[in-house]
Amino acid sequence: MTASLQQIFESHSVAVVGASKDSLKAGHQVVRTLLGVGYRGKIYPINRHEKEILGLPCYSSITEIQAPLDLIVISLPGKTVISVMQEAEQRGDVKGVVVLSAGFAETAIPENVELQRQLVEIARRSGIRVFGPNCIGIMNPDLRLVTGFHPGIELVPGNLGYVTQSGALGGALVTQALSQPKPMGFTRFGHVGNMCDVSNVELIEEYGNDPRIAVILVYLEGVKDGRAFMRVASQVAQKKPVLVLKVGRTEIGSKATLSHTGTLAGSDAVYSGAFKQCGVVRANTVHDLIAGAKAISMLTKPRGNRVCILTEAGGMGVISMDEVEVGGVLKLAPMSQATCEKLTALLPPMAMVCKPNGYVDMTAAAMPTEIGHALRLGLSDPNVDMVVLNSIPPTFKPALEVAQAIVAVVKEFDKPVVACFTVNQAMVETRQYLERNGIPTFDSPDYAVRALGILTQATFNSSHSLEDTPVAHHPILERAIAEGRHLLEPEALDFLSDNGVAVMPHVLARTRQDAQRAAKGMNCPVVLKIVSPQIIHKSNVGGVKINLHGEEAVGQGFDRLVNEVEHAAPEANIHGALVVPMAQPGTEFIIGMVRDPQFGPTIMFGMGGVFVELFQDVSFRIAPFDQEVALDMIKETKGYRVLQGMRGEEQKDRASLVDLLVRVSQIAVSYPHIKEIDLNPIRVYENGYSVLDARILLGTE
Amino acid sequence: MTASLQQIFESHSVAVVGASKDSLKAGHQVVRTLLGVGYRGKIYPINRHEKEILGLPCYSSITEIQAPLDLIVISLPGKTVISVMQEAEQRGDVKGVVVLSAGFAETAIPENVELQRQLVEIARRSGIRVFGPNCIGIMNPDLRLVTGFHPGIELVPGNLGYVTQSGALGGALVTQALSQPKPMGFTRFGHVGNMCDVSNVELIEEYGNDPRIAVILVYLEGVKDGRAFMRVASQVAQKKPVLVLKVGRTEIGSKATLSHTGTLAGSDAVYSGAFKQCGVVRANTVHDLIAGAKAISMLTKPRGNRVCILTEAGGMGVISMDEVEVGGVLKLAPMSQATCEKLTALLPPMAMVCKPNGYVDMTAAAMPTEIGHALRLGLSDPNVDMVVLNSIPPTFKPALEVAQAIVAVVKEFDKPVVACFTVNQAMVETRQYLERNGIPTFDSPDYAVRALGILTQATFNSSHSLEDTPVAHHPILERAIAEGRHLLEPEALDFLSDNGVAVMPHVLARTRQDAQRAAKGMNCPVVLKIVSPQIIHKSNVGGVKINLHGEEAVGQGFDRLVNEVEHAAPEANIHGALVVPMAQPGTEFIIGMVRDPQFGPTIMFGMGGVFVELFQDVSFRIAPFDQEVALDMIKETKGYRVLQGMRGEEQKDRASLVDLLVRVSQIAVSYPHIKEIDLNPIRVYENGYSVLDARILLGTE
Repeated sequence: MTASLQQIFESHSVAVVGASKDSLKAGHQVVRTLLGVGYRGKIYPINRHEKEILGLPCYSSITEIQAPLDLIVISLPGKTVISVMQEAEQRGDVKGVVVLSAGFAETAIPENVELQRQLVEIARRSGIRVFGPNCIGIMNPDLRLVTGFHPGIELVPGNLGYVTQSGALGGALVTQALSQPKPMGFTRFGHVGNMCDVSNVELIEEYGNDPRIAVILVYLEGVKDGRAFMRVASQVAQKKPVLVLKVGRTEIGSKATLSHTGTLAGSDAVYSGAFKQCGVVRANTVHDLIAGAKAISMLTKPRGNRVCILTEAGGMGVISMDEVEVGGVLKLAPMSQATCEKLTALLPPMAMVCKPNGYVDMTAAAMPTEIGHALRLGLSDPNVDMVVLNSIPPTFKPALEVAQAIVAVVKEFDKPVVACFTVNQAMVETRQYLERNGIPTFDSPDYAVRALGILTQATFNSSHSLEDTPVAHHPILERAIAEGRHLLEPEALDFLSDNGVAVMPHVLARTRQDAQRAAKGMNCPVVLKIVSPQIIHKSNVGGVKINLHGEEAVGQGFDRLVNEVEHAAPEANIHGALVVPMAQPGTEFIIGMVRDPQFGPTIMFGMGGVFVELFQDVSFRIAPFDQEVALDMIKETKGYRVLQGMRGEEQKDRASLVDLLVRVSQIAVSYPHIKEIDLNPIRVYENGYSVLDARILLGTE
Repeated sequence: MTASLQQIFESHSVAVVGASKDSLKAGHQVVRTLLGVGYRGKIYPINRHEKEILGLPCYSSITEIQAPLDLIVISLPGKTVISVMQEAEQRGDVKGVVVLSAGFAETAIPENVELQRQLVEIARRSGIRVFGPNCIGIMNPDLRLVTGFHPGIELVPGNLGYVTQSGALGGALVTQALSQPKPMGFTRFGHVGNMCDVSNVELIEEYGNDPRIAVILVYLEGVKDGRAFMRVASQVAQKKPVLVLKVGRTEIGSKATLSHTGTLAGSDAVYSGAFKQCGVVRANTVHDLIAGAKAISMLTKPRGNRVCILTEAGGMGVISMDEVEVGGVLKLAPMSQATCEKLTALLPPMAMVCKPNGYVDMTAAAMPTEIGHALRLGLSDPNVDMVVLNSIPPTFKPALEVAQAIVAVVKEFDKPVVACFTVNQAMVETRQYLERNGIPTFDSPDYAVRALGILTQATFNSSHSLEDTPVAHHPILERAIAEGRHLLEPEALDFLSDNGVAVMPHVLARTRQDAQRAAKGMNCPVVLKIVSPQIIHKSNVGGVKINLHGEEAVGQGFDRLVNEVEHAAPEANIHGALVVPMAQPGTEFIIGMVRDPQFGPTIMFGMGGVFVELFQDVSFRIAPFDQEVALDMIKETKGYRVLQGMRGEEQKDRASLVDLLVRVSQIAVSYPHIKEIDLNPIRVYENGYSVLDARILLGTE
């Protein structure tokens, strides 16, 4: 029977294989750490050459331990790990193994990769769960269980749950959280290393089911199965916030993740899309992650995103305001005129009230009672969802009195309030007092605002799970697959049309006369496009003739088209010319589908042309998705403003584009044989859209 | 005679007007602070109702003080400030006044603005220099002089010089610098508040001349005279680094700066351009500013921007790598194959060496001597300009031994090395040891990389001063000014041409026959554009006819042009039609000139069309400038890649565009009557460019 992760976190006995008297060895440190933190279970040092280590009797192998054994920590290299696993399998009572040692698949050296494969094989067979290799394993403050060698991490119980792919960064997160004025403790810590067995996704799921964990903090380099991640994360995110620090954001950063844990970071933009889709909140730095976790774990949920900034120092106020706009999540609270008038009457004459609205510089002349009253006025206004209070009590204004005034007022309301106390350590006591009374504090105004931004995102994020979609069949695809080729453009159009995509009238003309007849039927200027399985880039071989008007022009166009293509691509098998009406001018967009190595079918949206290449102004989501997600995708790009109608233009038909995105996402999952879809350009009008070019490539790789 | 700032910083006597026994009053705090820090001069409390304050004899006014008086701190409101200034003027020995009180011009209340005006009037007349109002004044650790009420800022002497427009943020900067493992002290601190007299620019100049100051740190909300700032900053930046934290970056942030000190933040993009132009380095946060100052004040200058990342922890390595790419200043060092091979031989088998090149994950298994050797190998490579060393010594590897190994190696070389020690406070001693030995340390890998980025920018920045350009005259401008109108397009083209801008052949045709003759002379398709002083937006009234080919088409075009405009704009006085050749297709750019309220004539460059509006992909520089600056301007935008030739296109004529930018910048300063220039679009070809539309508006506002 496979052990549960909970069983492993609650191990009552630990064997340390590679325990040593040499204080420079990791095996020594693990034993010393367990003793030092006061582990509430049995510790068995394993070393065939020693009788005792750090006062504990030593065993020559785990087979010698007569009592039950829950967990093994291995700090010996390569092959030894396999033999220990075999012994553990024979014992039958071992739930989990933490492999500290590096030197497995992350090296990409074949024999090391093979060792990791063997390790997994025994794990699967025996039901023993493996953390790592190349990890520091787990921490559980309740049992005072630590499997790594941590320079001084305190085991303070609390409501955070950590999942990390780096020991150092995981340690930095825990340390940051513990060094807050009111230390933020944790329930669980898990470092997954190479993820040969226990994965970050599995830990997220486990923490999701643990009612003591209020916020899950993830240091992420990458996931092995993006769709599994999304299924788990979208469910967990409905129960509690999942905050992710995803690194390997850049090209060279992602090369480093590959070096680190053998994880392919993949496209960062795809991850961003996936996070939004499943309701995971992304933070960019260790400090942001902890700031966000603090706000979430201490505050009530805001009712909206409207923030009032109260400041005693103008400079701090400016930084808060910049961050409100840069963050893009919050907006300034449009307070009522009555609130602004009352604030003006209350505050010292040099105070700047509601310039602009939602922003109040109380100035350093404001006294504790005035600050308290001002906070009350802000919180009383129904247009205020939350407050940032920047305070810099000079020595003549006792900081604690300011804090007491704040606490008294905050307790009257059910709205989030954060405080920023800057300048120096003299504020530590005050900050401790505030945090013990439920008000998170920060030492920098930008963090205060970002923390509320993360709280707001975690509150209003919607989690979309990936719907199961049955595989479908279509004769056009089946024929092309049978013939081992991609779709021809007329096939692509017919296939899209059968799947609910509006396509332009189109006729495959095999002769000049066919083309003329088709054009006449369309009764408008037409475009002729070469149809040949060998020709992908039609324009390069003269394979597109545009704006042909009247019988003569169409006839000549057909002849020129065929002649030029025959000349430029003599090997091409020409099926004829596709006749389509000349599309009206309009703003151009792109919709693409690729199969991402981590996330599978992934849809890209953006404006056409150089926008994609120069500005990366594109958004990604994982297929399939609904209209809400599709609209989010559009809103994420500058194309949204264009669709709203810039420079006096009419609003474009956003709904039709949303519908198109949803349909393409469904096609992507229904037909796994499609490798790539490229609808480019798509012109969007006040009513409807035109797909000017459609490419569908087959192959499942 | 006007007092020098140095005299004020070196005041040997201070009177505190508004001194009080009430510990809640600022005047009490100032005296207490001066006593507390051990000011090395005379303190004179001024209060007509007290005999003594904090043990010091009290005076009823400054006129009663018989001994010399250098400096006055005033913490009383409004009108009192004026009468104290008058008394100071009568004394004749007072060098400076610090006005703590707020409630002057920043309130925008007319009577308060008037008070500030009176204050300035006396200052100018008497030669007494005024800090503020609405400021905490100055600090000078040498004399232990403090004019504000600082909760616990230590007066540690050092080589930093602070200029701030916010007391709180200035305090935060000083505190941050002092809380480094090796505290970073300062020589001068000045908070300028409303800048009624002493400005931030003047302080920068003063610090530039002070040989004890190695780095100038500026918290900036805005400058009153942008050109004066640039003249000073470009000179000072040649002598020592000037680091600026400029806030009010956003629209709402800039509203807050106006509220704070009455400073108009102005266009943040213009500031960015001005900073680059004069060699000032911009930081985005308090922490970045201090990180950069630490690197600069402790390290030698790098010879280039190639960084080698050595890491003991993969996660830290990934974050460093992301930051290298995001920062955009540094690049990974292309180490020689020999270096990579030696590193591989040296390091533990699980180390990941040069994947990618320049990045070495030594893993936690590396021992102090190996870390030292690896560092030596990196520093020995001529392709390495600097090293980031990320260390996370587990408890079994004494951190101090790692540090000692690092210090020994760093001393062998003349290259910048920074260290990042994360996870916890256990590293503080080690970090102190490193910093005392000249190696700056950081607790987060992104800060280590950003610090080197700022050092590199400060090293390689070029400072361009604004050349004085004599005012020029031109008959076309003079005629238009006399007639009280803007330039007509043919005038604009002739004016530009006379100033060295290549313009297309153009003829003003007053009749149909004129137009036909001109077109025939051009021997190519032409464009006709209406010429009328009343018509600015020609296209809206049918005032542009394009692609006219042949006598008949041109004649018809002329008639249609005139008819349509007469119909659409019956009041317009039509001078005729401008005949120009139809321009070849090409990528479109914009060059614009406006007179910025802070910086005066300012040039904008960007790609044409929606790029400007949607992506703000534009750059600004202050006129006049040379080719080097113009090229920087282009490089700053995505247009640079387009000019290099995207998608297989040929490279465009960048040099001609550089030349055009320089010429427009010269025109902007030579002709102060020009209010606005708009060359839009400009098509750039493989050889040369075409200005398709030129608008020049006159008026100096």
